[in-house]
Amino acid sequence: MTSAGRGKEVKKDEIAELARRRGFLWQAFEIYGGAAGFYDYGPLGAQLKRRIEEVWRDFYMMEGFYEIETTNIAPGGIFEASGHLESFTDQAVVCKHCKSFFRVAGSVKVREKCPACGGELEAAGEFNLMFQTRIGVPKGDSDSGVKKSEGYLRPETAQGIFLNFQRLLRFNRDKLPFGIIQIGKAYRNEISPRKSLIRLREFTMAEAEVFVDPKGKNNHPRFEDVKDRMLRIVPGEGEGGGEEEKSVGEAVKSGIIANEYLGYHIAKVDEFLERIGIPRAKVRFRQHLREEMAHYARDCWDAEFLSERYGWMEIVGVADRGDYDLSAHASFSNADMSVHAQADAQGEAEPVKLIPHVIEPSYGIDRIFYALLESSLYEEQVGKEKRKVLRLKSEMAPIKAAVFPLLNRDELKKKAREVFQKLRDASIFVEYDDSGSIGRRYRRQDEIGTPYCITIDYETLEDDTVTIRERDTMKQVRVAIAEVKDVLVKV
Amino acid sequence: MTSAGRGKEVKKDEIAELARRRGFLWQAFEIYGGAAGFYDYGPLGAQLKRRIEEVWRDFYMMEGFYEIETTNIAPGGIFEASGHLESFTDQAVVCKHCKSFFRVAGSVKVREKCPACGGELEAAGEFNLMFQTRIGVPKGDSDSGVKKSEGYLRPETAQGIFLNFQRLLRFNRDKLPFGIIQIGKAYRNEISPRKSLIRLREFTMAEAEVFVDPKGKNNHPRFEDVKDRMLRIVPGEGEGGGEEEKSVGEAVKSGIIANEYLGYHIAKVDEFLERIGIPRAKVRFRQHLREEMAHYARDCWDAEFLSERYGWMEIVGVADRGDYDLSAHASFSNADMSVHAQADAQGEAEPVKLIPHVIEPSYGIDRIFYALLESSLYEEQVGKEKRKVLRLKSEMAPIKAAVFPLLNRDELKKKAREVFQKLRDASIFVEYDDSGSIGRRYRRQDEIGTPYCITIDYETLEDDTVTIRERDTMKQVRVAIAEVKDVLVKV
Repeated sequence: MTSAGRGKEVKKDEIAELARRRGFLWQAFEIYGGAAGFYDYGPLGAQLKRRIEEVWRDFYMMEGFYEIETTNIAPGGIFEASGHLESFTDQAVVCKHCKSFFRVAGSVKVREKCPACGGELEAAGEFNLMFQTRIGVPKGDSDSGVKKSEGYLRPETAQGIFLNFQRLLRFNRDKLPFGIIQIGKAYRNEISPRKSLIRLREFTMAEAEVFVDPKGKNNHPRFEDVKDRMLRIVPGEGEGGGEEEKSVGEAVKSGIIANEYLGYHIAKVDEFLERIGIPRAKVRFRQHLREEMAHYARDCWDAEFLSERYGWMEIVGVADRGDYDLSAHASFSNADMSVHAQADAQGEAEPVKLIPHVIEPSYGIDRIFYALLESSLYEEQVGKEKRKVLRLKSEMAPIKAAVFPLLNRDELKKKAREVFQKLRDASIFVEYDDSGSIGRRYRRQDEIGTPYCITIDYETLEDDTVTIRERDTMKQVRVAIAEVKDVLVKV
Repeated sequence: MTSAGRGKEVKKDEIAELARRRGFLWQAFEIYGGAAGFYDYGPLGAQLKRRIEEVWRDFYMMEGFYEIETTNIAPGGIFEASGHLESFTDQAVVCKHCKSFFRVAGSVKVREKCPACGGELEAAGEFNLMFQTRIGVPKGDSDSGVKKSEGYLRPETAQGIFLNFQRLLRFNRDKLPFGIIQIGKAYRNEISPRKSLIRLREFTMAEAEVFVDPKGKNNHPRFEDVKDRMLRIVPGEGEGGGEEEKSVGEAVKSGIIANEYLGYHIAKVDEFLERIGIPRAKVRFRQHLREEMAHYARDCWDAEFLSERYGWMEIVGVADRGDYDLSAHASFSNADMSVHAQADAQGEAEPVKLIPHVIEPSYGIDRIFYALLESSLYEEQVGKEKRKVLRLKSEMAPIKAAVFPLLNRDELKKKAREVFQKLRDASIFVEYDDSGSIGRRYRRQDEIGTPYCITIDYETLEDDTVTIRERDTMKQVRVAIAEVKDVLVKV
């Protein structure tokens, strides 16, 4: 029922203010002065984030993918193999005067002045972005190279999936292709994070790793389902870099997107973002330039969201990792990461052994959370007043409905409590509110995206009916209490 | 439909074997030789763990509690305040010969021999059990005391809730009591972990922090609902330490359980464990002895599960943390952690300011997962064969139903695929299997706890009916395809 375009979009700082005031998002450790790059999700934020994750999980499980859960901490050897110890780095500069460190990127370059005190900057070398720790009790200094007791917090959830590849293959009865998903924390020890949710040191990723026969990458069994989906794409340098509208089918056919598997998963990302309510007009897919590609990637596309505050920002990456990771782990661990391919699938006379390729959609859940908040918040004039309204889809809203007694009278409050309890007993997440004028209570729910407000009045006491008011249209209908549940569940 | 007592219970090592073979639980980093204290959840394990977490979340949200999500990493200052830097420690001994470290506990004490090589042991001091890391780029050695850049992985999720207390109070409109929940990873850098899932270095906790007026602890508004629940309890030393059966009401009345809030939440833990299917006969509540209590606790009860493998093991702790944490953070951060109590609630003439007390049920999800596996696995004789069956409650089972073609014929496989897809489209998590004899396929599903197997045969092609076979009774019924969904959803 969202009437897009109605009301003007709310300015950027109001999102941060609303998120803080209403319990979506809080700077972590604030009573101790905070620490850059760390945020906590408050009650409404955690609820919204959970909804994003649940929809994501269902979305990929419907593809037949299974979820696994691997550890946040891993020994150093794994990241030696994966290449993160060598390549997951940023260049830093240090201020000669105040000794602050900065990441070399965008606005801060060597020979510019210190953003903190104006002092002179000098190169401070390359820093690995993984958080390091130590597993167990130190055993002296006798070890050399990467010590077994050196641990790191994972920079992506993917490695935990690759390490279990053989078992997962067996779970899938030795057949390709198959997909595995994981949702969990990942960590990046940023040198000088500034941009709120956009550059976090601890964040949530939702990743799918799709293992495929390299010779079958151009033959996705459900490509037909997505091929006509129109995408806004920005091809890499080879194509001139301009933005264009193309169907997934055309983009794969013309070679802009390298293969059907990659194309299929780019389309799925687009579908998911639409499903949770990110406006399609604010999403595009940009191909990485060669020099910005991660060390493991053969090709990579970012789903970008057009933020009023940050401009185009990456919210999902879809990479073709080739056989990089499985080959690296095979070589470092001596484990056999190959698959016996069926003779017919290969068009070969004899069965062959191959290392699968990996297609990886990798979602930044915190950024998607931000994109959803920013693109859902509107301000509009209602009579003489302004109202803020968070136009979340009903299935995403942290609170499904609020129950109000029209007036602050005991008999109405008692009845409202009953209706509230009845809905909660039916596992519908509702809130009760009897404080302030009814108009004020509507506004409170509007700005947190609650799709329905249910009001109990004196008529209710006579005939067991209530009014249900819809958030976007502000229209009210009178409904029997016995039917309220069905109305809320249906929509 | 579980017929408890039928079939004999399966010996302990078979659980680990099944968990590994069928994709419930895998030792982490195995291709690199593994690392003690770290496990990964495979596809079926992650699914079962998720069900435990979802039921837990719903259970406490029905209490009116809100969930939040705070960071895994936190600066050192927080754990200075919380007391973990000083008190979250174990004594270690080191072997003079092989240099292995061991935790001083149970079987390993100073003057005994090294469990690894038989060498002589000596005291090696006290080790803090938090994983340490460094946030951002090191800024030289000029800092003193706990450096701002020193970070730790949280040893419990609770501190993240305490740090946000003021905001959470405001979210609850400045009223007590209220409850906040969190599910997430916690970490404990064990000196020498050995016992699989029982002593992990990285684990999942589900915690509720209930903030209450200290003068209201003996007046829980819903105590009536739980007071007649019978518990098997082991009071601390003051009571002689014997096991007894008592109702929650009696235990509170006689002072064995200190107050109604603590009693209410002990009863809720018992209810939750029963809800997910842990047999009541295998659960007891044991009060901590004074010397084993955590540094923050005034009183603490463990819900213990009687494991065939490990004996009585803690799976949940319910602690009265008093005002320890809020007072500590108030004092270290200078934040105001007090609440204006209502005059009438206090029986005082004037409103007073108070620091709330905290009642905390704290669940170890991995141990509950293990307890559920162990207590659900049975082996029984069926004709001449033995079958293993995982008698999980239907709502907990990783896979809700499996769909089989009776024979390996194209027309049956096609129809079975259709039924499979139809159920999956209805968001029911089903599996398809056409490999091996039907008996073998039943056994495969039995041992992972799938409650229903749906078989497509030649009759299906004629009249669109299938057989549904129930796991525990092994009885089969014939049902129209159109009704299968309802049958599965209902049970």
